[in-house]
Amino acid sequence: MTRLVQKFGGTSVADVQLIRKAAEIAVKTAAEGTEVATVVSAMGHTTDHLISLAEQITPQPNPREMDMLLMTGEQQSIALMSMAIQSLGGQARSFTGAQAGIITEHHHGSARIKEVCPHQVEAALQRGEIAVVAGFQGVSENNEFTTLGRGGSDTTAVALAAALSAERCDIYTDVRGVFTADPRLLKEVRQLSAVSYEEMYELACSGAQVMNARAVELAADTQVPVRVRSTFEPEDEGTLITHHLFAPEYTICGIACDTSQASLCLNSHLIDSGHSQLEGVSGLFTRLKELGIVTDMVMLLAREDEPSQELAFTVEKKSLSRVQSIIAALNEELGQPKVSVDTDIARISVVGRGLASRPAIVADLFETLFNASIPVHMVATGDIKVSALVPAKHAREAVRLIHNRFDLSSFNCQP
Amino acid sequence: MTRLVQKFGGTSVADVQLIRKAAEIAVKTAAEGTEVATVVSAMGHTTDHLISLAEQITPQPNPREMDMLLMTGEQQSIALMSMAIQSLGGQARSFTGAQAGIITEHHHGSARIKEVCPHQVEAALQRGEIAVVAGFQGVSENNEFTTLGRGGSDTTAVALAAALSAERCDIYTDVRGVFTADPRLLKEVRQLSAVSYEEMYELACSGAQVMNARAVELAADTQVPVRVRSTFEPEDEGTLITHHLFAPEYTICGIACDTSQASLCLNSHLIDSGHSQLEGVSGLFTRLKELGIVTDMVMLLAREDEPSQELAFTVEKKSLSRVQSIIAALNEELGQPKVSVDTDIARISVVGRGLASRPAIVADLFETLFNASIPVHMVATGDIKVSALVPAKHAREAVRLIHNRFDLSSFNCQP
Repeated sequence: MTRLVQKFGGTSVADVQLIRKAAEIAVKTAAEGTEVATVVSAMGHTTDHLISLAEQITPQPNPREMDMLLMTGEQQSIALMSMAIQSLGGQARSFTGAQAGIITEHHHGSARIKEVCPHQVEAALQRGEIAVVAGFQGVSENNEFTTLGRGGSDTTAVALAAALSAERCDIYTDVRGVFTADPRLLKEVRQLSAVSYEEMYELACSGAQVMNARAVELAADTQVPVRVRSTFEPEDEGTLITHHLFAPEYTICGIACDTSQASLCLNSHLIDSGHSQLEGVSGLFTRLKELGIVTDMVMLLAREDEPSQELAFTVEKKSLSRVQSIIAALNEELGQPKVSVDTDIARISVVGRGLASRPAIVADLFETLFNASIPVHMVATGDIKVSALVPAKHAREAVRLIHNRFDLSSFNCQP
Repeated sequence: MTRLVQKFGGTSVADVQLIRKAAEIAVKTAAEGTEVATVVSAMGHTTDHLISLAEQITPQPNPREMDMLLMTGEQQSIALMSMAIQSLGGQARSFTGAQAGIITEHHHGSARIKEVCPHQVEAALQRGEIAVVAGFQGVSENNEFTTLGRGGSDTTAVALAAALSAERCDIYTDVRGVFTADPRLLKEVRQLSAVSYEEMYELACSGAQVMNARAVELAADTQVPVRVRSTFEPEDEGTLITHHLFAPEYTICGIACDTSQASLCLNSHLIDSGHSQLEGVSGLFTRLKELGIVTDMVMLLAREDEPSQELAFTVEKKSLSRVQSIIAALNEELGQPKVSVDTDIARISVVGRGLASRPAIVADLFETLFNASIPVHMVATGDIKVSALVPAKHAREAVRLIHNRFDLSSFNCQP
């Protein structure tokens, strides 16, 4: 008997009608003789509403209590989803993260899953019930409730699929699948029928919101095939995320555009400061790591024969004020840097295998943007990704030009 | 060191400002050197909103999933309350019913508490933290989440107070305490400074909404003193509910008025039916018990020399349609009764010790209502309560006349 995990995100369970639609998909799948475990997120804006309640009480809510609060969103969804399945004649049983055996680190707000022990879920599936599991939440080994951070429901779904040896994990969302660029930015985009874990990971890290990056990583590690598909058009097969099926010389699978980032540039003169060049930088990144602040496009330019250094990186805008506080606290160690911040930027990323061995891609990218007089603030290249920072107002135009330049509307870039 | 349980009901935590007010009460009490455990209900109309979501999905939600859904309301409150206490400089830690060791029967929707094992709460109190416990919910011995039914937070508070050997359980609500009648019906009411468990139990059963009847019963059983007091006027000492302090000949402590009841009257002719007189009645009450439907004012009039019987009782209006279905299903056994239903009634109850030994009370009651031309449909008398059903439109007038007749505005009826 085949077994599937189906994950329904916040927009797929945003109201009672949509919950019924998601329930129909699960019931139909089960009726076809498949064992189904569903993972559901909180309804639409529930999480934002709860965060706003907490912020009305205190600007810095206790992380443990924040988890206690936020996990109620998914718990409401599992109960309602189970009722909806039952009202359609299906058998269902809901499980909180703890009941589903989602064991996490003891870390509030963004715990990582350590282990999944889905005994109760397994028993429900064997009884022929649709197991309805709360995404985004788990329990630590000392019995404290934890949450996995935004996008955590994707991770729950993949981890559960791996632990249940499911054939596949279907991520139902509000788009039909993965596209060569954001359909809201460009109309010539093409839907991919398949994409590799590595490419999807880079796309997810670069701002493609279709699936959570950590979840993609976990899928790659556990070799769980994932299908991203639409709750509203469930007959569409969506995009399969899996290991490489074959390897052409190089492929570009898509372009991501992320306007959630801010760039920082620190220019220091370390003369007479008594500090070694890297002491401050190292201290800064240690502190960022401790606070779980993710950086990207990190560039350091320090010449041994000159007592100055230039450090640049991007962070999410929402982390910016904390980053600035840390820099202020480390002012001395960093050589009293001149700090410039730019929040009016877009990070455009081109993702595809084999990019590292094709410097022409970078050249083509520069040329395309230069010809259009779009200024490029920073460029960073990785094995399968090239990212460029451009002014936010040029983002849409840059995506269009690059999409055209690499002929993504027609190019067959299936893995 | 003294130890208190403070319970804040839904109207006391209806919004963020009120949660802060409740937190202030807890922090102030703790600052005076008292160990404090608080029990909180869901915010204002949260529970009603969740029930409406479930009803939009299905007219008959699965009881297990209903519990899974409803318990999120209290869980949100404990997290927000803890944050509020912390923002005022207090130490706090939230506990779900399961974490607080509220062990219940395995029965969804209205489980009874079997045992309280508050190890984690005890540890928190000993660390100097304010323990914030979710009311209304518990966990069964086979690890299923349960809820205690409406008003269950009062029961949680009393049971926790008993298990923690607290000095007292304070029920903070939106009224100042217990009155001789509902202040919304009558302006000459008087606040009681104390009332006995037994009297409070009868008042609660008779429609006084100030405290849940089952919780009063539990307080009596465990001898936990309870104080009903106002969140909005915390300096008012409210009303103490406790065992008898002294016993005068008789006292009337108050009048309750309940318009949530419907009356049913079944008139049967059992001739040739082949059923014994009591078979149907017994079957009916067994079925009502199984469904947890509470009846009151049960009266049966059956004469041995006549094959007819008259059965009358009241139930909550919300149970009426289920009761009518049961009666229809038992039509044969009940002797094809003629059923009359009246929903336009009020049950007026006079509560006080020693009523059983004072038939004059019943006579005075009848006389008062008769003189005012208020028809009385049914009367039932108990040890410490006399209830009369009158047309709903006369309810307020009946309360006023009886309050005057027994001089409750001035009479000293303290236990």
